[in-house]
Amino acid sequence: MPQIDHTVHVALGERAYDILIGPRLLEEAGAILADRFPGRRFGIVTDETVAKAQLPRLQTALDAAGLSYSAIVLPPGEATKSYSALEQVVEGLLAARLERGDLVIALGGGVIGDLAGFAAAITRRGMDFVQMPTSLLAQVDSSVGGKTGINSPQGKNLVGAFHQPRLVLADLSTLDTLPLRQFAAGYAEVVKYGLIDDPQFFEWLEANRSEIFAGGPARGEAIARCCAHKARVVIEDETETGVRALLNLGHTFGHALEKDTGYSDRLLHGEGVSIGMVLAHGFSTRLGLAPGQDASRVENHLKAAGLPTRLADIPGEIGSTETLMAAVAQDKKVQRGALTFILTRGIGQAFIEKNVDPQVVHGYLEEMRSA
Amino acid sequence: MPQIDHTVHVALGERAYDILIGPRLLEEAGAILADRFPGRRFGIVTDETVAKAQLPRLQTALDAAGLSYSAIVLPPGEATKSYSALEQVVEGLLAARLERGDLVIALGGGVIGDLAGFAAAITRRGMDFVQMPTSLLAQVDSSVGGKTGINSPQGKNLVGAFHQPRLVLADLSTLDTLPLRQFAAGYAEVVKYGLIDDPQFFEWLEANRSEIFAGGPARGEAIARCCAHKARVVIEDETETGVRALLNLGHTFGHALEKDTGYSDRLLHGEGVSIGMVLAHGFSTRLGLAPGQDASRVENHLKAAGLPTRLADIPGEIGSTETLMAAVAQDKKVQRGALTFILTRGIGQAFIEKNVDPQVVHGYLEEMRSA
Repeated sequence: MPQIDHTVHVALGERAYDILIGPRLLEEAGAILADRFPGRRFGIVTDETVAKAQLPRLQTALDAAGLSYSAIVLPPGEATKSYSALEQVVEGLLAARLERGDLVIALGGGVIGDLAGFAAAITRRGMDFVQMPTSLLAQVDSSVGGKTGINSPQGKNLVGAFHQPRLVLADLSTLDTLPLRQFAAGYAEVVKYGLIDDPQFFEWLEANRSEIFAGGPARGEAIARCCAHKARVVIEDETETGVRALLNLGHTFGHALEKDTGYSDRLLHGEGVSIGMVLAHGFSTRLGLAPGQDASRVENHLKAAGLPTRLADIPGEIGSTETLMAAVAQDKKVQRGALTFILTRGIGQAFIEKNVDPQVVHGYLEEMRSA
Repeated sequence: MPQIDHTVHVALGERAYDILIGPRLLEEAGAILADRFPGRRFGIVTDETVAKAQLPRLQTALDAAGLSYSAIVLPPGEATKSYSALEQVVEGLLAARLERGDLVIALGGGVIGDLAGFAAAITRRGMDFVQMPTSLLAQVDSSVGGKTGINSPQGKNLVGAFHQPRLVLADLSTLDTLPLRQFAAGYAEVVKYGLIDDPQFFEWLEANRSEIFAGGPARGEAIARCCAHKARVVIEDETETGVRALLNLGHTFGHALEKDTGYSDRLLHGEGVSIGMVLAHGFSTRLGLAPGQDASRVENHLKAAGLPTRLADIPGEIGSTETLMAAVAQDKKVQRGALTFILTRGIGQAFIEKNVDPQVVHGYLEEMRSA
């Protein structure tokens, strides 16, 4: 029997699925898949980095269970969330003669999960898929909830689909080979769950951050709590017509900064979110909505985790305030011309504000550039 | 008040929508859209041919209603159902700053409807869209039911999404400028509805074909009956896990022939379906399932409508039987390696057969090549 430390059920009716969290689930993947999806074939999508570290483990497990599969290996990095990589994956799945009832396996971080999930959504008008997230970011955030997609030259995640996985297997051992910078970037999304509506979880993180980074039992517990949180939100609002937008805390600023740095290694997604969350708290303080000491506490915690928290922490030059504002305005969270932001009344008290004045944001960003 | 001859309601719960059929609905489109979608903006997708004949009519109507819109004009033809055209449309919609609540308008035939609907499905993870079909094929078939997509080099419609329109406006006057060959190709899909399960409709078509081609009241009635038929099937099986596959009568052979002729003017989609339906009837007769006189009656009716009915009717050389079989096997209607075909016990008695022996199909095709 596989060792499964935590099971989180995402109760989405006929699209319901389980998130399984355990120390070495890749070794168990063959048995789990053969049990849950008898007679199916599999198309693994991964990147070169993950292929080196994890693909042989998965292949060995699938072979042992007698499962039939093929693998598509892409270059690592955010640039892979492109139209051309999407076409490559779709054509690869078709060339492997995978049928509508077969499954795509997304083995990798957020980039691979988003790309492979989107390819599954549109190949033969919808194939099933399984998430096997290998980064902290993917395990706590992107592998759960069915948001899939690629980036447009005009902005991040502007092209995609809502397509729920049939199963998520989070193997904790894959995090052991993750570079610290990547782990910290994923940690920003962990912190986000506390900041949205769970101040107790934020406090718990303040007390347990070291153990989470060191790999003790708190790590698995943190991941399970994040998944449970996200599952609740997704169940309530699968296609983000309401409360799900809270999960975008820090993301409007973050996406603008990622775009400005060309989705490059200069700023990882989670790093953009870290700066974005600090900006969202600072902006809320500026508007008189939230106490300033909460903003400081957030910044201190993220800084202690090794994350950037200010515009000045981004290496190299960043674009003009006008450039950043244009990116903010192109973000998906714009409705009828007014800017929608996730603001906060303090730690664990985030809310959706649909009528933010672009001029006020402009002034705040202008000031933050020299902070 | 707009003159609406027929209204067909597609009762798909929260995805329900109306199909409106009338003599000059493009002139009424501004008023109808302003009434049903207040405050929204619109992105029109069309092709160069339709743009010349119909776009000014639509623009005048939208202007008169004070609606805001932009337009994307693509080259005409099946080659436009490509990855690159999809990217062009998505980027065009984003560049026009259309938001998630805005609507895409597909103004054109099946190619534009499939492409624009798919672009709507994936832009910002799903925009609403309106079908304004301007070909007979699109009015009776492709604009209804939410199948959207593009072609892969590996086969037709292999990439796409199920995405229902919010409204279908079928303006009968657009068919007056349609070349006869295009009209006839669409008529093949009209005949299909009779062949599936409505022998009375097939008889009615035998009696009314001339009036349908000439543009009398029978034309609107035929279109409304086809839409009502398709709506019933789509309501029962939205994502084609069962009976909806019956709508593919003639399409497995047809798609293989279209692929073989490079999705070119050598063989229009409806022409491929015409030959495919005759082959499906002939093959069913060969298997002892259907009376031979029904196959002859089908062929005679399609021939009288000016449609090709045999492989030899396709201009130029067609590929080897092996090439055609490979295309048949790549068709979406393949499950677990066995071939799925829509076969028939006679006119109006089609059924899904999931265990067709590829060898028998091979032998039949081989023989038909010299028929």
